[in-house]
Amino acid sequence: MQDSPSSSITSQSLQQTFLRVRSNKAFEIFVIAVIIVSALMIGAKTYELPPAVTQSIIILDWMVTGIFLMEILVRFLAEEKKSRFFLQPWNVFDTLIVVVSLIPIENSDMALIGRLIRIFRVLRMVSIIPELRLLLNSLVKALPQLGYIVALMFIIFYIYGAIGNMLFADINPVLWGDISISMLTLFRVMTFEDWTDVMYETMAVFPLSWSYYLSFLFLTAFAFLNMVIGIVVNTLEAEHAEQRAREALEHPEPTLAELKQDIAELKTLLKQR
Amino acid sequence: MQDSPSSSITSQSLQQTFLRVRSNKAFEIFVIAVIIVSALMIGAKTYELPPAVTQSIIILDWMVTGIFLMEILVRFLAEEKKSRFFLQPWNVFDTLIVVVSLIPIENSDMALIGRLIRIFRVLRMVSIIPELRLLLNSLVKALPQLGYIVALMFIIFYIYGAIGNMLFADINPVLWGDISISMLTLFRVMTFEDWTDVMYETMAVFPLSWSYYLSFLFLTAFAFLNMVIGIVVNTLEAEHAEQRAREALEHPEPTLAELKQDIAELKTLLKQR
Amino acid sequence: MQDSPSSSITSQSLQQTFLRVRSNKAFEIFVIAVIIVSALMIGAKTYELPPAVTQSIIILDWMVTGIFLMEILVRFLAEEKKSRFFLQPWNVFDTLIVVVSLIPIENSDMALIGRLIRIFRVLRMVSIIPELRLLLNSLVKALPQLGYIVALMFIIFYIYGAIGNMLFADINPVLWGDISISMLTLFRVMTFEDWTDVMYETMAVFPLSWSYYLSFLFLTAFAFLNMVIGIVVNTLEAEHAEQRAREALEHPEPTLAELKQDIAELKTLLKQR
Amino acid sequence: MQDSPSSSITSQSLQQTFLRVRSNKAFEIFVIAVIIVSALMIGAKTYELPPAVTQSIIILDWMVTGIFLMEILVRFLAEEKKSRFFLQPWNVFDTLIVVVSLIPIENSDMALIGRLIRIFRVLRMVSIIPELRLLLNSLVKALPQLGYIVALMFIIFYIYGAIGNMLFADINPVLWGDISISMLTLFRVMTFEDWTDVMYETMAVFPLSWSYYLSFLFLTAFAFLNMVIGIVVNTLEAEHAEQRAREALEHPEPTLAELKQDIAELKTLLKQR
Repeated sequence: MQDSPSSSITSQSLQQTFLRVRSNKAFEIFVIAVIIVSALMIGAKTYELPPAVTQSIIILDWMVTGIFLMEILVRFLAEEKKSRFFLQPWNVFDTLIVVVSLIPIENSDMALIGRLIRIFRVLRMVSIIPELRLLLNSLVKALPQLGYIVALMFIIFYIYGAIGNMLFADINPVLWGDISISMLTLFRVMTFEDWTDVMYETMAVFPLSWSYYLSFLFLTAFAFLNMVIGIVVNTLEAEHAEQRAREALEHPEPTLAELKQDIAELKTLLKQR
Repeated sequence: MQDSPSSSITSQSLQQTFLRVRSNKAFEIFVIAVIIVSALMIGAKTYELPPAVTQSIIILDWMVTGIFLMEILVRFLAEEKKSRFFLQPWNVFDTLIVVVSLIPIENSDMALIGRLIRIFRVLRMVSIIPELRLLLNSLVKALPQLGYIVALMFIIFYIYGAIGNMLFADINPVLWGDISISMLTLFRVMTFEDWTDVMYETMAVFPLSWSYYLSFLFLTAFAFLNMVIGIVVNTLEAEHAEQRAREALEHPEPTLAELKQDIAELKTLLKQR
Repeated sequence: MQDSPSSSITSQSLQQTFLRVRSNKAFEIFVIAVIIVSALMIGAKTYELPPAVTQSIIILDWMVTGIFLMEILVRFLAEEKKSRFFLQPWNVFDTLIVVVSLIPIENSDMALIGRLIRIFRVLRMVSIIPELRLLLNSLVKALPQLGYIVALMFIIFYIYGAIGNMLFADINPVLWGDISISMLTLFRVMTFEDWTDVMYETMAVFPLSWSYYLSFLFLTAFAFLNMVIGIVVNTLEAEHAEQRAREALEHPEPTLAELKQDIAELKTLLKQR
Repeated sequence: MQDSPSSSITSQSLQQTFLRVRSNKAFEIFVIAVIIVSALMIGAKTYELPPAVTQSIIILDWMVTGIFLMEILVRFLAEEKKSRFFLQPWNVFDTLIVVVSLIPIENSDMALIGRLIRIFRVLRMVSIIPELRLLLNSLVKALPQLGYIVALMFIIFYIYGAIGNMLFADINPVLWGDISISMLTLFRVMTFEDWTDVMYETMAVFPLSWSYYLSFLFLTAFAFLNMVIGIVVNTLEAEHAEQRAREALEHPEPTLAELKQDIAELKTLLKQR
């Protein structure tokens, strides 16, 4: 909006000012402090509090919302290309958190969402501290390499869930009533959480049903183990490759092939004479 | 069958056609979609459904069987050497799944097998997606290296199972009644599932029986840990070896021995003159 | 104190004597033996004992305190620069343990602290055996690299704790009453300890609350896994770097660049003639 | 005994015969089969059996003992230096198993030991199959490197056990009655086995006692993690070192230092002329 040609010089100098504010370390620390205050408020509200404190929390809450709004505006105005601002997912996230906080909510259903949004403000910690943002990005980046093993895991769960429902639904419908509840029960078995209770119950009807549980546990444990090993190996390989590349850049040693070439030239020199 | 000499040309062109169908990406996606539909139907049947839906599921089920039959025929006819078709385990698996689905089943015992076969159709997902097939193959290939440690584990379980049965059978026959139930109880102890209940019960009679459980837990945990480490080390070694081989192929650098040879030749050249 | 100029020569020779005592292997073994005796006494006191033994334990206890006092004095006097002595954390720890043991305690509240201090004497084992001290130091040194992932974990716990309190506080205030108790409950869920009991309880009211638990478990498991992998990779890298540095020192091989330089010189020699 | 000078030639040829028997593959397979039969008998005896089978098991048992006796004699007589035979732990183990089996036992207490010895016969599987023997040896060899971390773990357990006993003995003497039972309870807490039940019980009296459990869990988990990582790193390093040594033997490449020497010689040759 501010990018209209008539006010281009003013807006540019304004943008420079905002950029300077955004890059200011004190500004960043202030925003982090506000996020921590906001997080503490969320925690405080879960305890029984005297009315005076509750009152001050409501006021503080509005102040936090105000500061967040101001901060997002500063960041938006500091951006050179306004259209690019919303291409970064974290900016969208921050804006959404602020905008929803601003909507006055009276209805009780919406109030729940309002409270939820206030809780998600804590996540702004991740959006503002670069190291945490980096960490989360690397976690998210590690996900795709799990794709096929997760698919395989899901297939194992689905097949065992269907078999479990088919065989055990009459024994305990609470645990094996339909395929989704069966898969939840299987997840519980995989975490070893009271899994023998589940097993002994079905073994009373099908004495051999222990083979169902044991085969499931071995399959999933084995697939999980391979997943972990796969990630470790991939991470190590990536780390090595990066290091080799870094070394190659830092100490650009001649290759053996170059040396061989040099010696060959020497030979021709000698022969020529 | 179609390979009779009189129809050899026709059959060959037909085989080419089928090969083109099989290699068609759209065909593959269609089959995957049908498998997903079939999987969803299996899941849907575990819920209470209105009769209309149940009816349409029965019809859909026959359609799925029909498509699977068609697909397996296409794949069979696309094969150049018909005899080789059944040498691949996945082809045998796919054919079995289809053939058993075709058998009309009325008897209730057989109906159970029919339902089981329908569930195993989901596994066709693995047989049709090359990446999943590769993953499963690599999992299966990792199994043999576990051979001896699994044997050792079994010996530990067998010995502790026999001792447990000998000492604790009178205390709780449900847990220690015979050697197989004792080994199941030990597996439960290994997963830490209510293992103290098992222990406290026997400690009431043999106050020192905690040493039985603790020694068992340390032995199995230690053997398991070594197994995992063994796999990690093997996988890393294999990965390194592969990478070195790949690098050697990509950049065939002269070896130091070759360089030494070159320099030696230089020396003789110099000395000769 | 002993560092007054008048007694400097005597104190120096005394310091030498104490240094010799401190470095004496027999002295070290004696102190370790005393620590073990002190540890055994702590253990013994937890059993019902005849009065005679209790009496001798009280006497032994004073002897142990006396020996510890003597040992710390020897170590202090053996130190060249007295002021440096208290810069080492282990020295401060050892002195504190001894000094508090010396304070005569009658009041019951203080008696508890006195007993606690006696228990912490066992930690002197770590302060006296260099290998254990090294191990603990390396453990402590590994902590900082966990900094950001621990922060991320805490944020996950805090957000889920706030949501859990918001949604489930009315269902079971014992588990979800305020944010700290909610986080404790989440830690319990993360250890898979009867987590399905917690889940089934809330699923009775919110049938979809399984998604809350499953998403939490996946997030924390994934973050934890990445933390472990991160440490493994870092440790391996550090180990490799150290080994390369060691090899470079032991076998200072000429670099390829040096060889290339040599060959270039040869070439100029040849060309000049 | 048979080594008396008069019969030295005969005994030597006999020794050769026994050596041939021992090295015979068929002999080894036969002994393994007998061990398996013996193991199956141990398992079978844990079930209710008809008298005829019980009778035949008793006869089989004597036959197995006889064959084991014969086998140990063959191995003993095949040994060149009789005195060296009992230096190998596995030979001592095998002999003990056989000798104790031969003692006629009537007394019920001794009968228990007799049954125990029969169970340990299954371990002969490890002593006879070289791969399993190797595996167990490598497991045992990995133990010492755990020495100090196990000592540290024990110190942590001991201190927490003493504190736990001091604070919680009055709350639940079954769990915290003395230091050894406290350490067992802590081990239970470490395995996450119903640890919240233990915690909630003490939190009713000391609301802050959760910090006791959490600090204990973090300390032990962290020490355990470092132990595992330590083993992984050590194993990988050992593997790498071994591989480098193997490569150096297989392809004895000239070192760069040798090349540099060669080039220096070239230079002197050139300069001399």
